[in-house]
Amino acid sequence: MKHNRHSASSALRRRARKIRIVLMDVDGVLTDGKIFVCAEQGGKVADIKLFHAHDGVGLKLAKQMGLFTGVISGRHSPATAKRAIELGIDFVFQGQESKLLAYQQVLKQTGATDEEVCYIGDDLPDLPLLRRVGLAVSVPNAAVEAKKNAHYITDRPGGDGAVREVIELIFKAKGQWREAVATFMIHAG
Amino acid sequence: MKHNRHSASSALRRRARKIRIVLMDVDGVLTDGKIFVCAEQGGKVADIKLFHAHDGVGLKLAKQMGLFTGVISGRHSPATAKRAIELGIDFVFQGQESKLLAYQQVLKQTGATDEEVCYIGDDLPDLPLLRRVGLAVSVPNAAVEAKKNAHYITDRPGGDGAVREVIELIFKAKGQWREAVATFMIHAG
Amino acid sequence: MKHNRHSASSALRRRARKIRIVLMDVDGVLTDGKIFVCAEQGGKVADIKLFHAHDGVGLKLAKQMGLFTGVISGRHSPATAKRAIELGIDFVFQGQESKLLAYQQVLKQTGATDEEVCYIGDDLPDLPLLRRVGLAVSVPNAAVEAKKNAHYITDRPGGDGAVREVIELIFKAKGQWREAVATFMIHAG
Amino acid sequence: MKHNRHSASSALRRRARKIRIVLMDVDGVLTDGKIFVCAEQGGKVADIKLFHAHDGVGLKLAKQMGLFTGVISGRHSPATAKRAIELGIDFVFQGQESKLLAYQQVLKQTGATDEEVCYIGDDLPDLPLLRRVGLAVSVPNAAVEAKKNAHYITDRPGGDGAVREVIELIFKAKGQWREAVATFMIHAG
Repeated sequence: MKHNRHSASSALRRRARKIRIVLMDVDGVLTDGKIFVCAEQGGKVADIKLFHAHDGVGLKLAKQMGLFTGVISGRHSPATAKRAIELGIDFVFQGQESKLLAYQQVLKQTGATDEEVCYIGDDLPDLPLLRRVGLAVSVPNAAVEAKKNAHYITDRPGGDGAVREVIELIFKAKGQWREAVATFMIHAG
Repeated sequence: MKHNRHSASSALRRRARKIRIVLMDVDGVLTDGKIFVCAEQGGKVADIKLFHAHDGVGLKLAKQMGLFTGVISGRHSPATAKRAIELGIDFVFQGQESKLLAYQQVLKQTGATDEEVCYIGDDLPDLPLLRRVGLAVSVPNAAVEAKKNAHYITDRPGGDGAVREVIELIFKAKGQWREAVATFMIHAG
Repeated sequence: MKHNRHSASSALRRRARKIRIVLMDVDGVLTDGKIFVCAEQGGKVADIKLFHAHDGVGLKLAKQMGLFTGVISGRHSPATAKRAIELGIDFVFQGQESKLLAYQQVLKQTGATDEEVCYIGDDLPDLPLLRRVGLAVSVPNAAVEAKKNAHYITDRPGGDGAVREVIELIFKAKGQWREAVATFMIHAG
Repeated sequence: MKHNRHSASSALRRRARKIRIVLMDVDGVLTDGKIFVCAEQGGKVADIKLFHAHDGVGLKLAKQMGLFTGVISGRHSPATAKRAIELGIDFVFQGQESKLLAYQQVLKQTGATDEEVCYIGDDLPDLPLLRRVGLAVSVPNAAVEAKKNAHYITDRPGGDGAVREVIELIFKAKGQWREAVATFMIHAG
């Protein structure tokens, strides 16, 4: 059974409380799945991706509060690399034919177990990871096979706050969301 | 009568089972119909198109499972050419005043008959092909004349998974969809 | 009273039958109103606009069937100029503080009267023209003041087929739509 | 209690009547929150933002009618700077870790009090300002914490007319909207 934000069951909260690492696909999850293809006369190549500000605030917050974050993408995009640096994302794997190899490397480097990992994916290449992690998340605009393998489907679409929603869910399950919000009020006097 | 994904009639499945070649328009089908026009100071020209990741996975899958794929577009776009190479699309016709000439060339090169071809189109220039192929498909955002000439109208809009939906429909009709999905689980062991 | 496509009243059809010239605003009408602002390091300037393929087919058709077409925009955009050339648009006025001066020039050059002009606009700067032309059209995403001054509000939003819908309405009122569609079937033999 | 455009309560109108300065966040307010990340081969950097024409007309109108306008953004974007010049925006603060410092500078320069300021924000970094100003506004696509701290939530989404709606609300409360619209009819004779 899938759960949404408003009815996060105790089973879902139990899964969320164990999470130390949030990994995610890029296209369709951190974006709405639209791929910009740019061709310039003279052969120069520009790469464009469209991310969401709310996800950015969420990912910075995740890092600040001690979670590891990472992206594992089948495509290679310099724009994704640039955004990852901006947000302090810990693991950046791109051009991955098999996402499982990247995943195993993350486990090795962090000493984490499957149940300490949340993975957010939206399509067939994400199936192996969705079936394995402790908290498997998909998005409303995902392929049906990805949704079937998720413990949670976000309300917000990919590229429009889905990742932020997951980070919020994890911190709420851990009882840390108030603390997270409070960091923004420091200068408010 | 039009059919949607959930009620694919036996007549529609019969049409889909015969398909060896999937041809499609670009603007409005592989994209949402929005045309990026870019002008740069100094006269340089950049060309941008916005495709969808789900369609990309679908077209790669189609090729891998032995279908021919192709695009026939009235416009000329270097970005489309680039995307076609990325996805291993077999036939790329652009700047075509008459789509029928390109179509006839595909038949000749492949030895296929009309009923072995699926064509996806959304506007008036697509009418000649929609009226001729074995499986004529249109999209929700199409001109009414294109919809009237289609055997099937996708649930997903152009540029947002319509092509993926058609490829899925064909493989399901052929009883090959499970096999297609399984190729993504190889490394999942 | 406003009319939509499905209930085009005889009063609306009477207005539409007289039209020889279709003029329109750009932002919000030929686009969805989103303004791309691009800044490049080194001071180079790129200009991007997002048009719709269906409007493009409609505007080419309008020209082919003998209507004059034109854009009158408050902003100056090289991308609009480029698109106008592509589509054979007859009148291109940009950077117009007062749209009325451009309008009067069109009347002078064509010898047309107010009632032979259709104008499509979506915001306050369009009010003077909407109040004057024979067929004033606005879009669902328009400012309420523009809608109040329109004889017709399109079903399709600006940048997503609104202009195409108006051209279709005019040709249907003139009894020429079948003929227009038929031009696409010439090579279908 | 939140109010929408159609039921602007007398309490809301009282707040709006006092406003001399309209300040706003950029991402999610003047845009839909989507962040374009562009990477070009050779290390050149382009910055793109997507604003809305209706907000542009509104901000020009605000200036013309004597309001101060300003943006306070956590990110730094040359495209925002360019748009701000185009629209004659008075205060442009970017790359602000604490928005409160920028806010205090605006108060100092203008001699305004909190209740003479309207601030429009959509996410956690906006909370300190939303809690302080006389008229706190948020958007439908905002984080729930921002909405909870707003006196008014716009009907139109960020990047799609939200700012225009607020400017209209203020001028209507002041009884100046008719006058504002009339400025566009000057050349209409």
